Amino acid sequence: MLQISHKAQIMPLSPVRKLVPFAEAAKKRGIKVYHLNIGQPDVASPKEALDAVKNNNLKLVEYPHSAGNESYRRGLAEYYKGIGIDISQDDMIITTGGSEAIQIGFSTCFNPGDEVIVMEPFYTNYNGIATWTDVVLKAVPCSVENNFAMPPISEFEKVITPKTKGIVVVNPNNPTGYLYSREELEQLATLVKRHNLYLFADEVYREFCYTDTPHFSCMQLKGIEENVVLIDSVSKRYSLCGVRVGAVISRNKDVMKSVLRFAQARLCSPAYGQIAGEGALKTPASYFKGVRDEYIARRNYMVEALNSMEGVYCPMPEGAFYTIVRLPVDDCDTFAQWLLEEFAYEGQTVMIAPASGFYVTKGKGLNEARIAYVLQIQDLKNAMKCLQAALQQYNKN
Amino acid sequence: MLQISHKAQIMPLSPVRKLVPFAEAAKKRGIKVYHLNIGQPDVASPKEALDAVKNNNLKLVEYPHSAGNESYRRGLAEYYKGIGIDISQDDMIITTGGSEAIQIGFSTCFNPGDEVIVMEPFYTNYNGIATWTDVVLKAVPCSVENNFAMPPISEFEKVITPKTKGIVVVNPNNPTGYLYSREELEQLATLVKRHNLYLFADEVYREFCYTDTPHFSCMQLKGIEENVVLIDSVSKRYSLCGVRVGAVISRNKDVMKSVLRFAQARLCSPAYGQIAGEGALKTPASYFKGVRDEYIARRNYMVEALNSMEGVYCPMPEGAFYTIVRLPVDDCDTFAQWLLEEFAYEGQTVMIAPASGFYVTKGKGLNEARIAYVLQIQDLKNAMKCLQAALQQYNKN
Repeated sequence: MLQISHKAQIMPLSPVRKLVPFAEAAKKRGIKVYHLNIGQPDVASPKEALDAVKNNNLKLVEYPHSAGNESYRRGLAEYYKGIGIDISQDDMIITTGGSEAIQIGFSTCFNPGDEVIVMEPFYTNYNGIATWTDVVLKAVPCSVENNFAMPPISEFEKVITPKTKGIVVVNPNNPTGYLYSREELEQLATLVKRHNLYLFADEVYREFCYTDTPHFSCMQLKGIEENVVLIDSVSKRYSLCGVRVGAVISRNKDVMKSVLRFAQARLCSPAYGQIAGEGALKTPASYFKGVRDEYIARRNYMVEALNSMEGVYCPMPEGAFYTIVRLPVDDCDTFAQWLLEEFAYEGQTVMIAPASGFYVTKGKGLNEARIAYVLQIQDLKNAMKCLQAALQQYNKN
Repeated sequence: MLQISHKAQIMPLSPVRKLVPFAEAAKKRGIKVYHLNIGQPDVASPKEALDAVKNNNLKLVEYPHSAGNESYRRGLAEYYKGIGIDISQDDMIITTGGSEAIQIGFSTCFNPGDEVIVMEPFYTNYNGIATWTDVVLKAVPCSVENNFAMPPISEFEKVITPKTKGIVVVNPNNPTGYLYSREELEQLATLVKRHNLYLFADEVYREFCYTDTPHFSCMQLKGIEENVVLIDSVSKRYSLCGVRVGAVISRNKDVMKSVLRFAQARLCSPAYGQIAGEGALKTPASYFKGVRDEYIARRNYMVEALNSMEGVYCPMPEGAFYTIVRLPVDDCDTFAQWLLEEFAYEGQTVMIAPASGFYVTKGKGLNEARIAYVLQIQDLKNAMKCLQAALQQYNKN
C-alpha cells in the first residue's frame, strides 16, 4: 500500500471549512444561509486595480522577477513611507498572498521543532502553515472577558523555552478584531529583545482600524529592527483576496537574502496579481473612508444586536471585520452544525465559525464563535434575527 | 544573534541564476548578451488567454475555491480527455504554477529523509523544492553520449533503498530535451510497481514533441494508476509562465484528499491566472502547429551549428526547447563566467547554463552546458557565431 506522509495525515482542517458540507446541504433544502463564517469581504475591489488588469498590454506573460516586479516594489515602498514605515524596495519580496509570506518567513527563520508563540484565539492559517513547516505553536491565552487584550508579559515568559524562536502578532487581529496599542507592542518588543526572538507582525488588516489614532506598526518599534518580519497582503486592504499578492518585509538582510532563495525555488508571484496590486496603489483615500464607514456601521449594529441577546457577550472590536462572541451554549461546534442541519427561521439560517478551531489549547473557546461582519447591514439584520431565534430554540431543547 | 534556519542556509541557488550578476555587468559595459540560459519562451501567449483576462468582468476578486475554479477544472478534464488521459475534474487540484504542484505533491507523498530518484541531469527546481520539503534526491546517471536516454532498470535498482519512495520523470525532459518512449516508461512502471513507489510525472512540455508519434503520458500506464502523480502547468504550453497556474493530478484518492488539505492551507491559486488558463483552453490547433514548426526549425539549425564546431557534441533533442551540449572545455562554470566577464565578439556574447548545476553528483557535467533555443533564428545564428568564436579563443589561451 502506498502511504501518504505523516504531515499530510495531520494537516489540520480549518474550522471554517468543517461545516461547509452542512451548509451545502442546507442550501439544497432551499434554506438561505447567511455566511458570518468567512473572511471574504463583500466590498468591491478598487476600480484602479481592476482597470490595471483589464487595460494591461502584455502579449507574453513572462516570469516576473522572483522578488517581485521592481516598479511594484518601488510603489509599495512609497505606500509604506506614507504610513510611517521607512523601508526600501530591497527590504521586501512579493509573495503569492500572505499565506506564502508566512510559509516562506517560517521556513527562513525556524527549524523543525522550534516554538513560536501565538496569542490564542489566533488565525488558523498559522496552524496549517506551522504544521507544513514543522513549527510548534505555543499559546498564550487571551480572554473574551478582557476583550482579547494582550496578556501581561509574565504570561509570555511562562511559555518561553530554549526552543522558543518567535512570536506572531496579528494586528488588527483575526479572529478577535482586537487592535493592539503602541504600549502593548512596546512591551512585546522588550520581550522579543530579551529572548532574541523573531517578531512576525501580520498587519494585513492595517487599513481596518476604527479608532481615531493611526495604526501603529511593529516596523516602527525601536531597538528590534532586525527581529521584525512583516507579513502583508493586498487581499483585505483592497478586497483583492483572489489575486494572491502579499509580501515578506524585513530590515534584516540575512532574512531577506534567504527569503529570496525560497522565492526563487517557487520562481515568482503571479504577474496579473502584481499588476492589480500596483494599480491598487492609486486607490483614492475616499475608497478607504467609504469602506471604513461601512464596517463601523456594521460593527456597531452587530455588537449591539449580539449583546442584546440573552446570555451573549460580544466585546467591541476596534479593527478587522471579525469578532469572537461568547454564546450561551455548551459547545459551539455542535450548535453551529445544528444551525445548518436542523434549524431554520423563516427559511433562513446562519453559518458561524466555532471558535475552538482558533485555539491550540484543547477545550478552549467551546462556547465562543467567530462572526465576520462582511454582509450588508440588511443581511446582517436578518442574520442576527436568525441567531437570536436559534439561541432561544436551542436552549429550550 | 538571530539565526536563519538550517534549511535557509542550504537552499540551493539555481545554476541559471549564479551568473546573472556577470550578465548584468556585461550589459552595463554595452555588450549584447544572448540568453541561451533561460526557459522563458519568446513566443506570444495565445490571444484567447490574454483576452479572457482583458475582458473579465470581476468587480470583486474573491478567493477562488482551494481546489481551483470548477469551470476551469471541467475544461481541463476535457483537454486531458482530448489527449487520451481519462480523468475527471475531481482528480485535480489547481496550483500556483508547476512549482507549487511539486511542493504540495512532495509534501503529500514523502516524509523527511525519504529518497526520490531523479535521472540526472535534471530540472534544478526539484533540488530547491526537495531541500524545502526535506526530500533526498538520488541520481541515476544519463549520458550525453547516449543522448540522455533512460538508463537500464538495473541502474535504478542499484540506488533503491528502503527509504526510496518515489521517482521523478520529466517528459519531455528539461534540461536534456530527451523524449522518453512508451517502452521506456513501461519499464519504469514495472519498477514502480515492484517497489511500491510514487511516480511523479512532470509533463509540462507535453506539447513540445518533435516526433511523429503522439506524446505518451505516464497517466496512460497500466497497473500503476494509484502511483502516478501528474505535475502540470500552463507556463510552457501557452507561454504563460507569469500567470502561475499549474495542477496536481492523480487517480489516487488518498493523495488528492491530502493535496487538497495543503491547498487549503495556502487558500487558493490566483484568480486572474485561472481565467487566463481557462481562456487558453480555446487556443486553436494552429497556434501549437506554429510554435512546433518554429521550435523544430530552431532546433535543427542549432544542433547542426553546434555539431559543426570543433570538439562540440550536441544530441538531437526530440522535445522541450533545451539541449545539453558537451563543450571542449574543462569546466563550463569557468567558461560561462568568462563568456560574460572577458569575452565579446562584435560587441556580443552568450549566456549559457553550466550543466554541473543540473547534477546532484559532484564533478558530473563539468564539460556540459544547457542551451535553450528560445530565441528567433537570426538571434540564434548570432549567438552560435559568438559561441564558436569564444571556443576558439578560449582554447587558444
